[in-house]
Amino acid sequence: MKRIKCTVSYDGTLFNGYQRQPGQRTVQGEIESALNKICKQSVTIHSSGRTDAGVHAYGQVFHFDSDLSMDGGRYAKALNSILPEDIYVLDSQEVHPDFHSRYHGKVKEYRYKMSLNEYNPLNRHYVYYHRRPLDVERMREAMGYLLGTHDFTSFCGNLDEVNKERTIYKAELLDDEGELTFIFVGNGFLRYMIRIMVGTMIQVGEGRKLPNDIKHILSMKDRRLAGHTAKPQGLYLHRVEYPEEVLVVPSKKIE
Amino acid sequence: MKRIKCTVSYDGTLFNGYQRQPGQRTVQGEIESALNKICKQSVTIHSSGRTDAGVHAYGQVFHFDSDLSMDGGRYAKALNSILPEDIYVLDSQEVHPDFHSRYHGKVKEYRYKMSLNEYNPLNRHYVYYHRRPLDVERMREAMGYLLGTHDFTSFCGNLDEVNKERTIYKAELLDDEGELTFIFVGNGFLRYMIRIMVGTMIQVGEGRKLPNDIKHILSMKDRRLAGHTAKPQGLYLHRVEYPEEVLVVPSKKIE
Repeated sequence: MKRIKCTVSYDGTLFNGYQRQPGQRTVQGEIESALNKICKQSVTIHSSGRTDAGVHAYGQVFHFDSDLSMDGGRYAKALNSILPEDIYVLDSQEVHPDFHSRYHGKVKEYRYKMSLNEYNPLNRHYVYYHRRPLDVERMREAMGYLLGTHDFTSFCGNLDEVNKERTIYKAELLDDEGELTFIFVGNGFLRYMIRIMVGTMIQVGEGRKLPNDIKHILSMKDRRLAGHTAKPQGLYLHRVEYPEEVLVVPSKKIE
Repeated sequence: MKRIKCTVSYDGTLFNGYQRQPGQRTVQGEIESALNKICKQSVTIHSSGRTDAGVHAYGQVFHFDSDLSMDGGRYAKALNSILPEDIYVLDSQEVHPDFHSRYHGKVKEYRYKMSLNEYNPLNRHYVYYHRRPLDVERMREAMGYLLGTHDFTSFCGNLDEVNKERTIYKAELLDDEGELTFIFVGNGFLRYMIRIMVGTMIQVGEGRKLPNDIKHILSMKDRRLAGHTAKPQGLYLHRVEYPEEVLVVPSKKIE
């Protein structure tokens, strides 16, 4: 048995989210159905985490087990020859048999694209268009308060989550002539957390909140104090990082 | 009666082309149906030219006549409040009553986007992915032979066209690390002409034709000598230019 790790891009527009659901077109469902054909048996994949409906991925990671003797690097090409055109496997490799895409994913990067410029129908599924001007400098200041380890209850859309403590290593806002990119790097993110942080930054940018209100919002652990959940089409799971040791395939003993 | 000129962007992906056809979703059909609501009567629009299924527009131009007293500049906003999200009117203005978007469009610019990099599912409707390497320098040399006034029969997909002479003012190929943009500016283009020119450039880039074969292909007036018709999703009608005098509204006589 080999454990295979894949890195995959997808356009979230036409999927009912990531997670397999009977009768729905989902990313997991499409990938598993392609793997079933390749492996000629039922395969379950495990991803670094779900993405919601309309959310895209550049570097989502999943793993699965296979009994085939095929080299791990060949799954990418085999999958791409079967998968629909809105999913593309960038890379596949055999990894340590204990590797787990969710448990070992220690660093995740999400990006959110927002445009303050005139609407362009050609980008509508890939950028969120905000119609009012935003004060980018104030938003940058506010993003600084998100850095570090906090209880993110106020920025969480799922009340059932047990541990709401997360660490954000990087929270950056790029501005290319009104084309904004929010970059968040952390050890993990709660459900809707990025989109609620972006929705809150919009309120800061519009002057409806002060940058240092973020401190208070975090400390109160109350979802109602943060902003709305920003639209999904601007969000991308950009990459997931793993420690080197879980990637290395142990060398086989010579018998 | 006022003649109104509009500049419009659209994503060609989900349309059965530009031209109105019963029972089909077309760009013209959607715009006319929105105008019928605004003008409360049946309105016919005239565009600078059709675009084929899957082809996009950044700056398509159309005109129509209206009996409303509404200022010409207000049609853009009125239309955008009704139109589906894959069409967006950038600008509207009252023009000279003799203005005609097709007859007076003296300069047209088309762009074609092609990527030589790894497939990205997020761009699949907006860029053509070419899987083999291309020699960009040779393609640039070949494009030089398209400049000027020629009979473009060899690059025309419609045998019924009477006059196949056109003038190309600019034929440029930009290369941003494998993301290619072909820019063609001319006084008009025949059906499929840009896509056949691009398909021919691909053959040059692959070494299957020499740059100066273009001279021979033009002179033979034989469609079979040129390359295939490149895929529609890379093509954009970028802009249409009009002489200043057809745009100016004549001042009303004071009685």
